[in-house]
Amino acid sequence: MRVAVGPTNLDSGDLRVAFLSRKLARLLGVSGGSRLKVTVGSRELSLWVAITEDDNLSLLLPRNLYEELGSPREVDVELYTGTPSVEYLRKKLTGSKLSYGELRTIIRDVVSGLLSEAEIAAFIVAQTVIGMDIDEIVSLTRAMVETGSTIDFGEDAYDIHSVGGVPGNSKVSIVAVPIVASAGVFIPKTSSRAITSPAGTADTMEVLTPVAFTPEELKELARKVRGFIVWGGALNLAPADDILIRVEHRLKLDPTPQMVASILSKKLSMRIKKLVIDIPVGSGAKVESLESGRRLAELFIRVAGELGISTRCALSYGDQPVGYAVGPALEAREALETLLGRGPTSVKEKAASLAGMVLELAGLAPQGGGRSLALRILESGKAYEYFRRIVEAMGGNPSVKPEDVEVGRYKAEIRAHTDGYITGVSNKTVAQIATTAGAPTDRGAGVLLRVKKGHKVRAGDVLLEIYSSSETRLEEALRVAETLRPITIEGMVLEVYP
Amino acid sequence: MRVAVGPTNLDSGDLRVAFLSRKLARLLGVSGGSRLKVTVGSRELSLWVAITEDDNLSLLLPRNLYEELGSPREVDVELYTGTPSVEYLRKKLTGSKLSYGELRTIIRDVVSGLLSEAEIAAFIVAQTVIGMDIDEIVSLTRAMVETGSTIDFGEDAYDIHSVGGVPGNSKVSIVAVPIVASAGVFIPKTSSRAITSPAGTADTMEVLTPVAFTPEELKELARKVRGFIVWGGALNLAPADDILIRVEHRLKLDPTPQMVASILSKKLSMRIKKLVIDIPVGSGAKVESLESGRRLAELFIRVAGELGISTRCALSYGDQPVGYAVGPALEAREALETLLGRGPTSVKEKAASLAGMVLELAGLAPQGGGRSLALRILESGKAYEYFRRIVEAMGGNPSVKPEDVEVGRYKAEIRAHTDGYITGVSNKTVAQIATTAGAPTDRGAGVLLRVKKGHKVRAGDVLLEIYSSSETRLEEALRVAETLRPITIEGMVLEVYP
Repeated sequence: MRVAVGPTNLDSGDLRVAFLSRKLARLLGVSGGSRLKVTVGSRELSLWVAITEDDNLSLLLPRNLYEELGSPREVDVELYTGTPSVEYLRKKLTGSKLSYGELRTIIRDVVSGLLSEAEIAAFIVAQTVIGMDIDEIVSLTRAMVETGSTIDFGEDAYDIHSVGGVPGNSKVSIVAVPIVASAGVFIPKTSSRAITSPAGTADTMEVLTPVAFTPEELKELARKVRGFIVWGGALNLAPADDILIRVEHRLKLDPTPQMVASILSKKLSMRIKKLVIDIPVGSGAKVESLESGRRLAELFIRVAGELGISTRCALSYGDQPVGYAVGPALEAREALETLLGRGPTSVKEKAASLAGMVLELAGLAPQGGGRSLALRILESGKAYEYFRRIVEAMGGNPSVKPEDVEVGRYKAEIRAHTDGYITGVSNKTVAQIATTAGAPTDRGAGVLLRVKKGHKVRAGDVLLEIYSSSETRLEEALRVAETLRPITIEGMVLEVYP
Repeated sequence: MRVAVGPTNLDSGDLRVAFLSRKLARLLGVSGGSRLKVTVGSRELSLWVAITEDDNLSLLLPRNLYEELGSPREVDVELYTGTPSVEYLRKKLTGSKLSYGELRTIIRDVVSGLLSEAEIAAFIVAQTVIGMDIDEIVSLTRAMVETGSTIDFGEDAYDIHSVGGVPGNSKVSIVAVPIVASAGVFIPKTSSRAITSPAGTADTMEVLTPVAFTPEELKELARKVRGFIVWGGALNLAPADDILIRVEHRLKLDPTPQMVASILSKKLSMRIKKLVIDIPVGSGAKVESLESGRRLAELFIRVAGELGISTRCALSYGDQPVGYAVGPALEAREALETLLGRGPTSVKEKAASLAGMVLELAGLAPQGGGRSLALRILESGKAYEYFRRIVEAMGGNPSVKPEDVEVGRYKAEIRAHTDGYITGVSNKTVAQIATTAGAPTDRGAGVLLRVKKGHKVRAGDVLLEIYSSSETRLEEALRVAETLRPITIEGMVLEVYP
């Protein structure tokens, strides 16, 4: 049935709800809390129904949703009775393998908005419990690419991507990309904002320069510089990913097949041909053992291979945060320092190793010789010079100094209770302190470690500093730090009984 | 934070949404589409957030939700950041067994409203894919009972319950209950309305008498008659069930552990001590093979045993609809006819067999002698006389005759295209025709079979009649019947090629 539709002055975010008058609801056979199928052009959505006491045949949508649908005057509405996707989910749950066509239907319905959270949750859980084989992951990746936009720069593109899970890691590609680009290799890096972590690469880069670009602006950018780091969110690359990630986050699940498909679909959408994947391995990281790191690497290489992406994986040290800084502004500052030649060794080493692998893939260094070439580029200042060009091209201030980067005005310190050696810096607790302090939304919030594993400290030495733009949040973060003690000192007495 | 709350003139059904002014949202750190935790007394809910352009610190809830919460003046609100239940779900998904305390937390959060559809879906999917052991099902059942009301009649209660899945089955207990009750056995049967099937026992009984009672009214009823058939939905028995079933329905999943827990929790809430469970077995039924029927029976008996309910299971013939009538009014009519001694043999036999098993459990008949005692009671007219007493006590018209029961005024017939023997009557297609015609909401809608398996027909004979109160729906149902052909005649030519 075709009905007139208008906006109502509400911002419902991702909640898809339609306000129907009782009269219209009765005509369609829907009631409060049931689902309505709305068709606008080629897009089909299911919306939750709330019934208004309006006397007309009225249909109203929250303004944000109305605008997302292109502010239509009329839409087709009917009682929503389901989609074949639900049958495919059920098929997967009973152990059958899904075909490309079936996965494509599921993903299309995720993107369009026909599947509800409950149904998307079933898909995520199926991947967690039952898993997917190589064919299915390849099909899933293709389906995610085909339901979004792609950008073709007209030449082979390279990329570096980390699966994440270790705080402080967002700055690594900010150092690695200019190394690679300054050597002439084309590296159009898209990155994401943090969902649960203190800083995504896009969050950190945004401290220094705008990161949201349209596809056309990106092509323009590629004519000016050989590499950049932008936010992928505005580009409609594999848009199923954001929706799936939201549900994963809600369920606290992160199934491997979906992780692989999500990463590779973004890369495929950017026509990446050669890819280096960083897999941090360590306690509290996403991958906790070398063994599972190797399995994941093998999976990435096989799936990417089927998709025409030549891939190398680095299993990197992930037992403690990378560098000393955690949080967008603190990490941006540390990235700048590293580019200027005075950053921590761990950041320099990691960035050079990953950049070196790209240089090898590009044939600019012999197998095993990439890292030292990358280090030479970094130490020569060429990478820093190229980074200035990138920042300028992206619309930031190329002359920004590390000390110009503003961090949270409220600051607290955690000190050592005893003398000893640092035997552990907990990834999870450091991340939790930083997010409690407000990162990543509060760009200046985060943690600055003053020690790393193996350092010697004396009682009273500062172990870490917490930054925040809010005094309340700083206090909460301090409480988390004091309760969970992110840093272990050998010989520390935890409790004393009389 | 404590804020004033009011209703807004909306009926949102099961959709839990809160309307916050931008000012309040900012203060709480929530945005459109995020989740808000609302605490009212001991109840904690999570609500979806929609942001209004109101200038005050306002919080509005849809009227139905506001009233469900007891029309409070103020509530406590905060940003919802999750519940331990999500950790337990994740634990289950990684293969661990859940304890009673963990399951109780999950079920409490389901009932309270803290868990979203996505999270409940994860729970249903975990049960589907991973399953649950006896301990977990017992714990789940207990948790479902303890989060709802219980009714104690002060004496041992008996019950009959069918797991369903076969159309036409809703009338069986309407015949069986008066047989049992007229022999003096106390059988306070609660039943449900149909969700996907053409008629639940409550729908069919409601054609003859009111079925919604409060616990007090139920106790009053028990003082007048030894048995009744009421709708369980108004009694707050194991309220988690309705919520879980809604999500199961959406996902088209019906995991066995949840089915067992749902049925037994309702029985335990009514202090049922002896129970007969009917498991129809047949193509297109819920249980398709004797083998899986036996496994299900074994599971019921073990779980019920742990819960103190002595149980017997009947694996019954479920290869075609029970009797001839499908749909509330048509089945009510057939039940009356059976009580009057002129119903179909299959209905009489099935009701007498199940009633007989109860009579044996009650010690009124020797093992194996229940069925014939039940048949004698039915044929003597005693069961019909008792049924009149029940209907009168429940507020219906005890003198209602089968021909008084109103069925849909629009009627269509499906005729045989060829001569032959009936070799199949499809449960699923018959159910689909009946629901397409409008059952169970349209009480008079349904299917009246004119033939069953083994009958001989000639071309042109009527195979079935479809009833509906809506001409449009009748036409749709007719189209379904003509396309899917619910009745197979041996020798039927399905298609002819030139």
